[in-house]
Amino acid sequence: MSACDVDLLARAARAAQPSVAALDGPARSNLIRAIAARLRASGPDIIAANAEDVARATDDGCGAALLDRLNLDGGRLEAIARSLEQIAAQPEVVGQVTRREVRPNGLRVERQRIPLGVIAMIYEARPNVTAEAAALCLKSGNAVILRGGSEARKSNAAIAGSIEAAMRDAGLPPAAVGVITDPDREHVLTLLKLENVVDLAIPRGGEGLIRFVSEHARVPVIKHYRGVCHLYVDASADLDVALALLLDGKTSRPSVCNAIETLLVHAAIAPAFLPLALAALHARGVEVRGCSRTRDYAPAVKEATADDYAAEFLDLILAVRVVADLDSALAHIERFGSNHTEVIATGDEVAASRFVAGTHSAAVMVNASSRFNDGGELGLGAEIGISTMRLHAYGPMGAESLTIERFVVSGSGQVRSPL
Amino acid sequence: MSACDVDLLARAARAAQPSVAALDGPARSNLIRAIAARLRASGPDIIAANAEDVARATDDGCGAALLDRLNLDGGRLEAIARSLEQIAAQPEVVGQVTRREVRPNGLRVERQRIPLGVIAMIYEARPNVTAEAAALCLKSGNAVILRGGSEARKSNAAIAGSIEAAMRDAGLPPAAVGVITDPDREHVLTLLKLENVVDLAIPRGGEGLIRFVSEHARVPVIKHYRGVCHLYVDASADLDVALALLLDGKTSRPSVCNAIETLLVHAAIAPAFLPLALAALHARGVEVRGCSRTRDYAPAVKEATADDYAAEFLDLILAVRVVADLDSALAHIERFGSNHTEVIATGDEVAASRFVAGTHSAAVMVNASSRFNDGGELGLGAEIGISTMRLHAYGPMGAESLTIERFVVSGSGQVRSPL
Repeated sequence: MSACDVDLLARAARAAQPSVAALDGPARSNLIRAIAARLRASGPDIIAANAEDVARATDDGCGAALLDRLNLDGGRLEAIARSLEQIAAQPEVVGQVTRREVRPNGLRVERQRIPLGVIAMIYEARPNVTAEAAALCLKSGNAVILRGGSEARKSNAAIAGSIEAAMRDAGLPPAAVGVITDPDREHVLTLLKLENVVDLAIPRGGEGLIRFVSEHARVPVIKHYRGVCHLYVDASADLDVALALLLDGKTSRPSVCNAIETLLVHAAIAPAFLPLALAALHARGVEVRGCSRTRDYAPAVKEATADDYAAEFLDLILAVRVVADLDSALAHIERFGSNHTEVIATGDEVAASRFVAGTHSAAVMVNASSRFNDGGELGLGAEIGISTMRLHAYGPMGAESLTIERFVVSGSGQVRSPL
Repeated sequence: MSACDVDLLARAARAAQPSVAALDGPARSNLIRAIAARLRASGPDIIAANAEDVARATDDGCGAALLDRLNLDGGRLEAIARSLEQIAAQPEVVGQVTRREVRPNGLRVERQRIPLGVIAMIYEARPNVTAEAAALCLKSGNAVILRGGSEARKSNAAIAGSIEAAMRDAGLPPAAVGVITDPDREHVLTLLKLENVVDLAIPRGGEGLIRFVSEHARVPVIKHYRGVCHLYVDASADLDVALALLLDGKTSRPSVCNAIETLLVHAAIAPAFLPLALAALHARGVEVRGCSRTRDYAPAVKEATADDYAAEFLDLILAVRVVADLDSALAHIERFGSNHTEVIATGDEVAASRFVAGTHSAAVMVNASSRFNDGGELGLGAEIGISTMRLHAYGPMGAESLTIERFVVSGSGQVRSPL
């Protein structure tokens, strides 16, 4: 594959995009359901291709976390198929009229959702992204170029085969879902420079990948850097609620971006809460790194550094800090946060309002776990990523975030400067 | 002024932004009205400063069009003050809850508008942008760095003085509206690289400026390239309506981006419409460049080239092409258009629907002039620019387009994986 091939692939996607945009709602849903059915029918082939990827990654000495993300079995493949069916069942967004207004001169002004065009999805390891990103792009009337990680190339090629077959069955140009399995990183660079062909690049993966994409892109990028998520336990918090949010946030799935990385505790509740919390964390194998006031309750705890407060551990490690008040908690989040998810446990509505007003992260949770910052949990059906950038989309991005509102104006011959 | 000064200015804007975001609706409106009042009160000083800019630009040999954009008189200053008052009177967008949903687990999920943060506005000549961009950014709770063209530096400094005085009177940090009047282009480069300080750059001006900004920016950019706007006269068009749309679109203000640059005429209506249209255009001093079939009606007309069809003339020049049908018109627009504004004159609802569905420009007008693609005309109050990029905002951008929706979630201790 050459740079020229990547260019041709992207141009073919662009040429095919209007066919996808023109589908009506039922045809679009049927197409996505047909991809799910194809994935189920080709399950053994996909799992066999994935086994080759896993074997190669194992030989290459990849770590357990990557192997886990890479691995596909029957259960995971079924989960992907169901996720596609959920995307198919979501309301149609293409052509949706979001606002209507009649101007004093009689002009009818509508805002209508249309697709963005061609999306370049650049991601790592997880082969489920290949199917889910394709489904979300088709749902929103976009064409997509999928460039997954080289470690998943056989799995991605097998999944792409199912997508292509379903596109052909529906009489649609398969080029609307382009797949690059060639591991050469130059292809990513080529894609990122195709300013009049690619409308948006979405990198999804580790910080290295995201920095690489945003440094080299000439096309617009929606980034999701890091989730340094905070739980602030207010003076008025219910201890059981605070403990539940802490344990769910830190231990239910520590490797994900919406896990809690830092606990901030109001000084007034620290004597009641911290002994409970530190014991529960210890029992669940969580390593705590704390400020000096935290260490008053657990002298064996390691002293937290500024690096710890800035860290996205993605592991059973937690930074803890006792703060003087809510404003100190907000100042800490402003300094160390990553605009992802912040949580307050509180029994005080005024404190809740001040916390919500005082942070500008993509999601702010009052007495709810950080783990709910997820497209499915927030009602979007599925997500193509979580934006931590305050532009176009902020937080989980579903099909709607892959559209833009344009103006459709109808009149009866109105002019601005009558002769 | 050094790169370090620009960096400090931007960081001061960032530090000041929460004070602007925290204003309530009435205080925000009063602030913007106070700026309008200050502009009126300082009118003579601003006009004197502007006279210096105009004199220098004249000495430098600037063209009439630039001098016209640069020039401020009492009437234009009053128009700016009124535009600010209109912005003040618009509904408050900061904190607006756009959607509410209760999830099956009882979580209350809201989408709430918050400011983008710090906007870098990079523009040319027109000093009105200094006041209007500042007002729109304040309206949306953002801080802004205004970097106007060097030709308007005295005018911009005088206007900035009024803004600063009103900010001080309101007890707000004037740093929230930073102004760079130093003409060194290096400052623009510095601004465009401040990734963790500047959230968005908006270039507004000629194509050279916009290319410069988008080529050098490391911060996100919303571009407005060109307006190659089309009027398609369908077979079923009312001749009077079509003629009114043509003359308003081409001649009411030819130097603006929402002026018509190319006329496409269905072959079936060409014999009735073109003689009328060509005579009216000729009477108004419009130079026509036409296809061979156009020239059948006016042999003296110059043959249109592909460059003519791609041109944003911004002048009393019009490219004309007779097309076989609506699909040919859409294919022409797809090839030569700039995603700005497309107009159909038609008496046929099916043709109108097909035209709307077949183009993806920021605004599509059915029997209405292209000149209505304007923030004020479409009900946004005022505009900071017109995006031709399908990301974040498409078409005129008002205060709402300078915000983003975040998620605010309230619960009673819900967790995702109960213990």
